Amino acid sequence: MEKMEKIYRVNMTDQTVSVEPTPECYRLIGGRALITQIMNEEMDPQCHPIGPNNKLIIATGLFNGTTAPCSGRISIGAKSPLTNGSKESNAGGPTGTMLGRMKIKAIIIEGLPKVGEDDFFVLRVTPAGIEILPAPQEIIGKGCYETARYCKKKYGYSHTASVLTIGQAGEMRATAACISLTNMEGDTSRQAGRGGLGAVMGSKKIKAIVIDNRGENHITYADPKAYRDASYRLAKIVNKAGKGLNAYGTAVLVTPINNVGGLPVRNFSEGTWDDRFKKITGQELHRLADERGGQWGHSCHPGCCIACSNVVADKDGEYVTGSLEFETVALFGSNCDIDDLDCIARCDYKCDDYGVDSIDTSVAAGIAMEAGVIEWGDKEGLEAFLDEMGKKTPLGRVIACGAATFGKVFGQWRVSQTKGQATAAYDPRGCKGTGATYATSTMGGDHTVGNALPGRGGIDPHSTEKQAGLIRNLQAYSAYMIDSTGWCLFVGPSFTKLPFAVELINAKYGTSLTEKDVYKMGIETLKNEIKFNRAAGVPDIDIPEFEKVEPLPPHNDVFNVSMEDMKNIHNFDYEFPEEKTTDW
Amino acid sequence: MEKMEKIYRVNMTDQTVSVEPTPECYRLIGGRALITQIMNEEMDPQCHPIGPNNKLIIATGLFNGTTAPCSGRISIGAKSPLTNGSKESNAGGPTGTMLGRMKIKAIIIEGLPKVGEDDFFVLRVTPAGIEILPAPQEIIGKGCYETARYCKKKYGYSHTASVLTIGQAGEMRATAACISLTNMEGDTSRQAGRGGLGAVMGSKKIKAIVIDNRGENHITYADPKAYRDASYRLAKIVNKAGKGLNAYGTAVLVTPINNVGGLPVRNFSEGTWDDRFKKITGQELHRLADERGGQWGHSCHPGCCIACSNVVADKDGEYVTGSLEFETVALFGSNCDIDDLDCIARCDYKCDDYGVDSIDTSVAAGIAMEAGVIEWGDKEGLEAFLDEMGKKTPLGRVIACGAATFGKVFGQWRVSQTKGQATAAYDPRGCKGTGATYATSTMGGDHTVGNALPGRGGIDPHSTEKQAGLIRNLQAYSAYMIDSTGWCLFVGPSFTKLPFAVELINAKYGTSLTEKDVYKMGIETLKNEIKFNRAAGVPDIDIPEFEKVEPLPPHNDVFNVSMEDMKNIHNFDYEFPEEKTTDW
Repeated sequence: MEKMEKIYRVNMTDQTVSVEPTPECYRLIGGRALITQIMNEEMDPQCHPIGPNNKLIIATGLFNGTTAPCSGRISIGAKSPLTNGSKESNAGGPTGTMLGRMKIKAIIIEGLPKVGEDDFFVLRVTPAGIEILPAPQEIIGKGCYETARYCKKKYGYSHTASVLTIGQAGEMRATAACISLTNMEGDTSRQAGRGGLGAVMGSKKIKAIVIDNRGENHITYADPKAYRDASYRLAKIVNKAGKGLNAYGTAVLVTPINNVGGLPVRNFSEGTWDDRFKKITGQELHRLADERGGQWGHSCHPGCCIACSNVVADKDGEYVTGSLEFETVALFGSNCDIDDLDCIARCDYKCDDYGVDSIDTSVAAGIAMEAGVIEWGDKEGLEAFLDEMGKKTPLGRVIACGAATFGKVFGQWRVSQTKGQATAAYDPRGCKGTGATYATSTMGGDHTVGNALPGRGGIDPHSTEKQAGLIRNLQAYSAYMIDSTGWCLFVGPSFTKLPFAVELINAKYGTSLTEKDVYKMGIETLKNEIKFNRAAGVPDIDIPEFEKVEPLPPHNDVFNVSMEDMKNIHNFDYEFPEEKTTDW
Repeated sequence: MEKMEKIYRVNMTDQTVSVEPTPECYRLIGGRALITQIMNEEMDPQCHPIGPNNKLIIATGLFNGTTAPCSGRISIGAKSPLTNGSKESNAGGPTGTMLGRMKIKAIIIEGLPKVGEDDFFVLRVTPAGIEILPAPQEIIGKGCYETARYCKKKYGYSHTASVLTIGQAGEMRATAACISLTNMEGDTSRQAGRGGLGAVMGSKKIKAIVIDNRGENHITYADPKAYRDASYRLAKIVNKAGKGLNAYGTAVLVTPINNVGGLPVRNFSEGTWDDRFKKITGQELHRLADERGGQWGHSCHPGCCIACSNVVADKDGEYVTGSLEFETVALFGSNCDIDDLDCIARCDYKCDDYGVDSIDTSVAAGIAMEAGVIEWGDKEGLEAFLDEMGKKTPLGRVIACGAATFGKVFGQWRVSQTKGQATAAYDPRGCKGTGATYATSTMGGDHTVGNALPGRGGIDPHSTEKQAGLIRNLQAYSAYMIDSTGWCLFVGPSFTKLPFAVELINAKYGTSLTEKDVYKMGIETLKNEIKFNRAAGVPDIDIPEFEKVEPLPPHNDVFNVSMEDMKNIHNFDYEFPEEKTTDW
């Protein structure tokens, strides 16, 4: 008999675990769509993010654990301590695959235990169920790398067991704390980075979650042959399209974003970085990996056929960090006036280990330099600055609360953030479509929920024309086709891949959805998030004032997508002229 | 010829001063009503509070400088760095009287100068105009007391010159920084305390504003005899009604608020404080003043006939602080488990001198104790904690950002604040009407804009019934009759005093307003503030979750005024059944 998909509830207040079958109405939603659905159904939108009534939700995507390429990303969500709104953040590693194969639709973690500041728990998830165990003293106050290694050894059954941990930042319930996840080698270089989910996990006093399917795989398909067939055809396309990413990682973007004038330089005060951008490119990362014995073309989760990730080694060939991405490179690099990939890699490691979002932290670092807390380009100063988080000093707490709070505490108004969350490494004055996503996104300053990369849709990134229609499309497809299936962002969104999403869902679930249906599911997901956010008091549109009034060299452009256009992005009764025609 | 009322504009970007006549449409609005009017007409509600497009507005009330009793309070406003919304904060001292007599309707300070972090300016306001002067090194980094003494001597002409200053907190642009104003003796014991206006003044790089009318008085009245007559009759009533306040100051409230179960005890975790409340009462303050040579029955501004203020002396009779109020007493007292008025007075002085709101700071202190940063009741620990602000350490910066930011940075969710501003010393679970004001107020957690003191309107403070109607009345009268005239809160609001407001306005301005008109002006003021706040993204209603879900001993009550009632407070088409009948 086919194993039912199940939902676990872990109540940290009374330390109980219960399990229930997945309601039929959840069948075709997963990941991000499921998270916002549960949040709307079960939560008071005005609850405090680190209070007893927030819920930390781990939700598998529709394809998690299947043979579809690039479908292993796991979604984690809650009411965000950064934005106060609906939040989903997804990450690689084997977690999604394992949970999918155990047929776990979601783990909903509720309540707050009444224990001391230094008391924590470990959750162990296996096919036998979920156990709540007291966390051993050895991992309290420790970073994510060490915690995960310890927990994998102590609580894992197989060598593939995955571990989700919080570092010192999550223990402090700092608002930019992330959840770090192990990759396939057991390093916590994968992050559910954005929105402060580590603070929610820390508030529930969970230091680590160890997940081990012990090799079990209960995945079934309505039409296995059709699923396998579509997977195979898609893999070939994605593999080919992802060649640049495979070779140079996401840092391949340094050059085009610099060229378009959207690279954050010295706290978003210039858009290009003369010749120095060449020292922090993906090509340079690749060269160093070849020279030193780091890795490029590294897969972040089972079944990934793009393999855009990397492992960075130092001059002696020793591990420095894993998964050094464009955002982190640009924001600790040009944004902090630092052109040294070794220093940038060490900063990335510190973020992953202390357990903070490297985007919010690096934007905070740029502000710290502008405020004179660190000198521009001071590498040692920057690394010492980050180490404050590990020591849990007052300064470290402020840093770990991210760019918005850092800017507030240090009296700075030039803070590139929306709705409390730092924007990514695309200055909205040079990448106006992405700027419109930052401004309108249900997630705050997030580039993954609708990133109008230069050239996308054939639209000039400096033009304000047609951006809004493109952005609505990107946001809708990201919300469901990507973030609710477990697919990696790099599978799409693009019309080329949309038919595969439809084919795969139908083959797995025995449905007969159309492309229109999938688009509509994306809109429904956005509507759910907007509903939650409004009830939580999160504004619909938010733009950092300095990006509206301060022209960005060298184009001397401001962010000026019209308010009317931006309001229409989420006014779903309004149809953009370009909505149906944009070829992106 | 009658001297025209004028509006000054000080542009700090290009260091210019201009003057313009007051538009006719501003004639019958002053103080708070004028501030929100100017904000709506001239400002982008989404501007950054410490960016170039916020404006710091000093606006005289309709009665400032006249012979009406208790009419000397000066209104200062801006977009609040704490709430992000419309903000007016008023204070005593001679400033209102001086500006009124110089016929200055408002001083609007705009722009941001491009100068170094440690460069500041001093403004000098005299009948000759406004000068922008470089601030001397002697006052940079100094507290408000010393700064004001220095500036009064250097820039004042007469001994009555008043000085507005920021302390270290305002220099840091910390979000709970206040503006400190001199009292009639030249001590900066008067504060425009709430909402972070000191950060706005600091962002504009103004360390002090020296105001000296050089004895000039250009006040005129349409009907001088009627004005004098009404003033005299009112003074007799107010004088009699204010006897308790005169003798014991606002701390006379410690006993009734404790008795009703609304006193904040150990970070709002209990509502009464066994027998210890007796050690921090107004009666005890009075006794100490008599014993040591402090003062009670001290007037905060010229023409005050209540004289509820005080000067606190130490055991040797030396000055400790001035104007030690109920809020500060309760929030540094029972809220921090400290029953020593000497320590509380020293903490008040530190707040006034470093230039932070003593309410937001003392609520932060209670949270710090709950978080284990200081031990409960640790007096030395608390004083050292406050001294961090003077040293501008990272911890000091966080404290000076107020309770909401302090709670966020230290991972605490039990934070008694609404819309970013700490609530005052009436726990909303024991004083539900005041709780409804905190939740709905355009100002965030503010007790002065609609305080349903126990017994007001004959309503049980623990009942949810009829609170909303009472609160709308109180909010409307406070907004115009009190905060827009320069009247002290203790003149009203009450129907007994309303006819006087009408009489005085008509006698001064030659109008024929009715009581209904005055009420309507209050509603219009609220509407203007709501308009600005909504456009700025400030939620209409905000309630700290713990006060909704955590029963407060000894009544074990939660804050549960219905959402419907609270929404109706600002739904002016809705008429509360009790609106016309409440006798308060």
